[in-house]
Amino acid sequence: MLRWLTAGESHGPALLATIDGLPAGVEVTRDDLAGALARRRLGYGRGARMAFEQDEVEFLGGVRHGVTMGSPVAIRIGNTEWPKWQTVMSADPVSDDAYAASNDVNAEKEVARNRALTRPRPGHADLVGMQKYAFDDARPVLERASARETAARVALGEVAARFLAQAYGIRLVSHTVSMGPAGVADDAALPTPDQVDEIDANPVRTLDGPGSEAMVAEVDAAKKAGDTLGGVVEVLAYGLPPGLGSHVHWDRRLDSRLAGALMGIQAIKGVEVGDGFRTAGRRGSAAHDEMERDETGTIRRRTGRAGGTEGGMSTGDVLRVRAAMKPISTVPRALDTIDTTGEGEAKAIHQRSDVSAVPAAGVVAEAMVALVLAEACLEKFGGDSVGETRRNHAAYLSAIPETMRSW
Amino acid sequence: MLRWLTAGESHGPALLATIDGLPAGVEVTRDDLAGALARRRLGYGRGARMAFEQDEVEFLGGVRHGVTMGSPVAIRIGNTEWPKWQTVMSADPVSDDAYAASNDVNAEKEVARNRALTRPRPGHADLVGMQKYAFDDARPVLERASARETAARVALGEVAARFLAQAYGIRLVSHTVSMGPAGVADDAALPTPDQVDEIDANPVRTLDGPGSEAMVAEVDAAKKAGDTLGGVVEVLAYGLPPGLGSHVHWDRRLDSRLAGALMGIQAIKGVEVGDGFRTAGRRGSAAHDEMERDETGTIRRRTGRAGGTEGGMSTGDVLRVRAAMKPISTVPRALDTIDTTGEGEAKAIHQRSDVSAVPAAGVVAEAMVALVLAEACLEKFGGDSVGETRRNHAAYLSAIPETMRSW
Amino acid sequence: MLRWLTAGESHGPALLATIDGLPAGVEVTRDDLAGALARRRLGYGRGARMAFEQDEVEFLGGVRHGVTMGSPVAIRIGNTEWPKWQTVMSADPVSDDAYAASNDVNAEKEVARNRALTRPRPGHADLVGMQKYAFDDARPVLERASARETAARVALGEVAARFLAQAYGIRLVSHTVSMGPAGVADDAALPTPDQVDEIDANPVRTLDGPGSEAMVAEVDAAKKAGDTLGGVVEVLAYGLPPGLGSHVHWDRRLDSRLAGALMGIQAIKGVEVGDGFRTAGRRGSAAHDEMERDETGTIRRRTGRAGGTEGGMSTGDVLRVRAAMKPISTVPRALDTIDTTGEGEAKAIHQRSDVSAVPAAGVVAEAMVALVLAEACLEKFGGDSVGETRRNHAAYLSAIPETMRSW
Amino acid sequence: MLRWLTAGESHGPALLATIDGLPAGVEVTRDDLAGALARRRLGYGRGARMAFEQDEVEFLGGVRHGVTMGSPVAIRIGNTEWPKWQTVMSADPVSDDAYAASNDVNAEKEVARNRALTRPRPGHADLVGMQKYAFDDARPVLERASARETAARVALGEVAARFLAQAYGIRLVSHTVSMGPAGVADDAALPTPDQVDEIDANPVRTLDGPGSEAMVAEVDAAKKAGDTLGGVVEVLAYGLPPGLGSHVHWDRRLDSRLAGALMGIQAIKGVEVGDGFRTAGRRGSAAHDEMERDETGTIRRRTGRAGGTEGGMSTGDVLRVRAAMKPISTVPRALDTIDTTGEGEAKAIHQRSDVSAVPAAGVVAEAMVALVLAEACLEKFGGDSVGETRRNHAAYLSAIPETMRSW
Repeated sequence: MLRWLTAGESHGPALLATIDGLPAGVEVTRDDLAGALARRRLGYGRGARMAFEQDEVEFLGGVRHGVTMGSPVAIRIGNTEWPKWQTVMSADPVSDDAYAASNDVNAEKEVARNRALTRPRPGHADLVGMQKYAFDDARPVLERASARETAARVALGEVAARFLAQAYGIRLVSHTVSMGPAGVADDAALPTPDQVDEIDANPVRTLDGPGSEAMVAEVDAAKKAGDTLGGVVEVLAYGLPPGLGSHVHWDRRLDSRLAGALMGIQAIKGVEVGDGFRTAGRRGSAAHDEMERDETGTIRRRTGRAGGTEGGMSTGDVLRVRAAMKPISTVPRALDTIDTTGEGEAKAIHQRSDVSAVPAAGVVAEAMVALVLAEACLEKFGGDSVGETRRNHAAYLSAIPETMRSW
Repeated sequence: MLRWLTAGESHGPALLATIDGLPAGVEVTRDDLAGALARRRLGYGRGARMAFEQDEVEFLGGVRHGVTMGSPVAIRIGNTEWPKWQTVMSADPVSDDAYAASNDVNAEKEVARNRALTRPRPGHADLVGMQKYAFDDARPVLERASARETAARVALGEVAARFLAQAYGIRLVSHTVSMGPAGVADDAALPTPDQVDEIDANPVRTLDGPGSEAMVAEVDAAKKAGDTLGGVVEVLAYGLPPGLGSHVHWDRRLDSRLAGALMGIQAIKGVEVGDGFRTAGRRGSAAHDEMERDETGTIRRRTGRAGGTEGGMSTGDVLRVRAAMKPISTVPRALDTIDTTGEGEAKAIHQRSDVSAVPAAGVVAEAMVALVLAEACLEKFGGDSVGETRRNHAAYLSAIPETMRSW
Repeated sequence: MLRWLTAGESHGPALLATIDGLPAGVEVTRDDLAGALARRRLGYGRGARMAFEQDEVEFLGGVRHGVTMGSPVAIRIGNTEWPKWQTVMSADPVSDDAYAASNDVNAEKEVARNRALTRPRPGHADLVGMQKYAFDDARPVLERASARETAARVALGEVAARFLAQAYGIRLVSHTVSMGPAGVADDAALPTPDQVDEIDANPVRTLDGPGSEAMVAEVDAAKKAGDTLGGVVEVLAYGLPPGLGSHVHWDRRLDSRLAGALMGIQAIKGVEVGDGFRTAGRRGSAAHDEMERDETGTIRRRTGRAGGTEGGMSTGDVLRVRAAMKPISTVPRALDTIDTTGEGEAKAIHQRSDVSAVPAAGVVAEAMVALVLAEACLEKFGGDSVGETRRNHAAYLSAIPETMRSW
Repeated sequence: MLRWLTAGESHGPALLATIDGLPAGVEVTRDDLAGALARRRLGYGRGARMAFEQDEVEFLGGVRHGVTMGSPVAIRIGNTEWPKWQTVMSADPVSDDAYAASNDVNAEKEVARNRALTRPRPGHADLVGMQKYAFDDARPVLERASARETAARVALGEVAARFLAQAYGIRLVSHTVSMGPAGVADDAALPTPDQVDEIDANPVRTLDGPGSEAMVAEVDAAKKAGDTLGGVVEVLAYGLPPGLGSHVHWDRRLDSRLAGALMGIQAIKGVEVGDGFRTAGRRGSAAHDEMERDETGTIRRRTGRAGGTEGGMSTGDVLRVRAAMKPISTVPRALDTIDTTGEGEAKAIHQRSDVSAVPAAGVVAEAMVALVLAEACLEKFGGDSVGETRRNHAAYLSAIPETMRSW
């Protein structure tokens, strides 16, 4: 039973992340978290905020002397801009005078912080959130709906990833498949976990040279046109055992959980396992992964079209999932909207200068996959310490008869 | 809190479906269930089993005199072929003699029922299931992994759909978008709930004439080639209120839940909300749904690219989701596999004669969407009777200020 | 993740029980279930219904040839009286004529089956259920609230108990502590699992001779007085490993889960772990279980006051929990009530002739404890087959250093 | 869906509490939290720590300008003693030298902070926690198992209580029933929410004069004897609607959830609803709450023996639950224990000077009841804003026919 909650607003004092159910004995430090959060700010096409958004991160519980204790792990990610927002986003009531005085009229390209936001941005939670929660100001909605919240997930994902690596040798890697119409070649080799640094060093997080250039050019063109870009990212997991998830009930299927987790990321509109939609266009004889034995007698699948799952379970082959991200909704060339007060026509406010967040979305997707896999592993292997769950994992693999081994 | 479980094996005595949390007062009868199950057998390209698979269905709990009682609703779908399988699938132990005598050697194109299945079929749960559950026979795996289980979901989905219609006026429709490379035109009009009968009457469940012809031709061609076809189905929901799901946490987002539910259907490899992967290729200025007021002052979105969700919540516009189904894995032209006993090369057994189950997959997807929406509505509106939840729904809509109405 | 649902009404066609998450490889047969259900009918003080209530039970899924398959286990318990109720409790609508004709005016001491029940019985769900679910007839409420539903739990508990015994050597026993003011001696020896048959053979399910006589006399006296009796039952579990549940979060504590499960049984009003309320009256120096090493160096607790839990976790010593049952609410000497139609004074209807269900409550409590323990074991040890989870359990115990062993 | 997690260690930098699912519009401030935390430190018999344990509390998310936003509410309770513990409890690794230097050899009656704790205290999680999580030091166990964690629950409970009061007019009160053998009279009047201040002003949190004196005397006697005291606390909730929880499934019963929540508090060993164990000793004719109509025609129950629940649902009458707390386990007169290193006999370390925490336990129990009731109300009434759920609640009550009203 791994469960986790995030909390905190985009311009509030901090983001919080709490995860319950991790075994004792996972080695993780504050530096690990800081490194993960830095990766989330990567990518050509990001605007000014990413540069100054230095995450101040710390553990508030669950970790002692660099090792988890089995108790809930709690992480606080401070907002370095909090002093500018402490009146507007104060938890306690503020006087009208103090509120009025907090008006930062020089905020570049930004609505005054203390003014009610009544022009919902298309593609954002603004209007629906106001309707649902009975607000006449979109501020409380956008503060939580903001993708800033993914920092909390990335921090948790780092803890989950370290657990997966230390307990089971499972390692993840993500990369960018496309940005707008540009992307990597269809037959490009799959990246491996040993190439994470190389990928992170690339402006758009890809190993594909021509693809990288095309995507950079696309970002430049979109920027010039005052526009934004979506794209597709892919996450791969290596070293999985066969049998994570289960075919016996839909919500225990690993593919179902991965899809829910990826679609649960802000701005994601599509999810694929393996070849996904492309598989739907193929005939059956060319859509599956035939099996054979290699020279050592080990069972091998000839292809990886299914993305490493069969019957909703990990096969033990490379797990491969994709997520499609829509372009950033706050387009520099403002979109038409309405004013919820009933006043005339309106333009949506533009609050940021990113052209695309696709490269960073891979890092977020990686975190969500890590969390899903950690949960699935703990369900299968149990254990309250890294040593215990590792031992159970090893014993499971050893107990599978030689003639049924696929690794 | 709506929760549900299905149980039962493909060739066992029955499938069971239990759902807890539905309000009292939903009108539903056995005939409704039978009608839904008949829809699941629709579609050009299905083989012999669909014809004789007359579902014998009944309520075992939760419904009295055609109305739900608030208690768990339990449905039994009997297996009309059970007499042929009662030894092979007996719950109680059987003697070796009885088991041997049950061998149905004349089973057409089928392995003898009582023989251990040791040649896992690519694309199925067989091999992984054996590894995970420590079986030396794939029988217990395939019996549960079979798509036959979706009958239980369709029955539950029918109850959920009737609840949605009676309590909130929400209605669903599904249709086939493509089968293999053939499909409906990109600019085809979206079907409406009033067209369900018309869609069901079409051999491939589409309203698009040329698309229908192309898909039928594709099925014929695949059949001739001894091959199978995947495809894409779409589900639409009309009459949703704004504000189902929530932006505040990833697993409360409606899009996340829909994705998990659709990917949790057997053979589904991809899921999209709205324009999905196509959105990822567009620029921001052409990817969102701009807002305006119509002549009555009601807020309207000019387009439906986002598929009726913003910030993970229903907007109140038409909800539109898609699922990509892989081709049936048991291809007539048998795929290569191995034998888990370690014996030499092998061919996967072919057990059915369907070319494609895509048209029926729309009906299953519709059921899953109905179940997700019913859960989301009950979370938002509460209520233990249809009258109570309906009243809460109406009061919610009435309380949204005139200038913020989008319906 | 062990989860389970029951369904079905007291006079409906059947009760259903479905449990998901049990490993493959648990040996269990229909006879095992029938035996468990027979135990639930035990006890001096039961009325006529128990005698003719021959449970017709079968597996509908999850078990093949006497062994679980890892898929959801589904059990149907038929209602042998269904023919008498099939119009009154029909799932499908019935005509007014058919309904009127179903009136069984000779039903002894019972309201005509087809008449609306408008005199809510004190101590039952009747009135509140009508208010909550908007009924003008208590029938749908009492049909589900009836203790008949516990048959479904006992059946599931039997499967759980067999799993616990086969995988981990954990065995349970329950007995009656008191009925009304009569009961067993405070210093009576704790029963062991080897004494289950002996307990079941006793009219009030106790090993204590004088206590048995006193309780039987109390039943006789209550019956003569036209009254009913409550009492206290105790469940003990032997062979638990240390470390089930967890101190790290309240809802992962084993004692919390046990309390919820026991209080979730119809008519239970109090729950204790170990000495419970008696502990609250003691001083600290006499309230805890001091530790020492025995001659072999094994850690032993000198007493069992805490009931086998510390910090919300099993210690490995005998787990001991108690549940207090209120007297049956349908007292022969009818209780005052009102008529929900607004008519004058009323008396609650008396529908059964039991004096007490306390002895049987021990069997139900045993089932609930088995289900909680099975869930806790699977969380700690994981595993998808009995062999896998057993291996993990054994390895866990082996890995605890010699100097820290308490068993 | 109300869910919450706490995190943090007793001597760590802070406790964290996060709750997801509260509606927008609940008014709550930091002062409210501080007030609740101060109540948790009440009670005659507390030792030194309570005096200096000034909780430094703040919202980190979910609340803006004194009102909840519908997003997860996050609370941080700082540990004012953190500077003394920052090496011993550092999240990041510390050097051996730094660790050795942190040894606070003068810590009164306390083991040196940096020494491994190998003498598990009877009645605590120490030994089992070490076995479960594979520790050779009890430090990580006791840090989380400590009752200090209840501060996080009390903070969350305060938010829940404000929600209940503002949305539904539900108000809670708790008081002490007994400490050791001393307690309030059986026929004492039930306290009401208007008497909370009066109760809090009493040294042992009771309104009963003689009971108060007896309990104070008992504390003094126990203190003199170097011993500790347990006791019983009671929580009452006024203003509940009928129909919270449900009879249809065991884990939806309100009594089941309350029992789980109360037993989930550190040191609680018994739970009762209404008269609980006393009911089990009565005959049926004297054990239930007969109904009648009062002069206005309203349905009234003559007694409150059942504690305000029937069939596992709130009746709308006063809800009344009790919890039995064991005496503090760290008795001044040290208990016998062992040393896990295998060394000879040992005495358990005594780390605190409280005689009893019973009066404060009422405040913690009140918080847990508030959280359970908030969850139950949201399930029944739904709603994303206080206005919406309040409206649904009012409409539900209005819709119950006049002749069926019990309030």
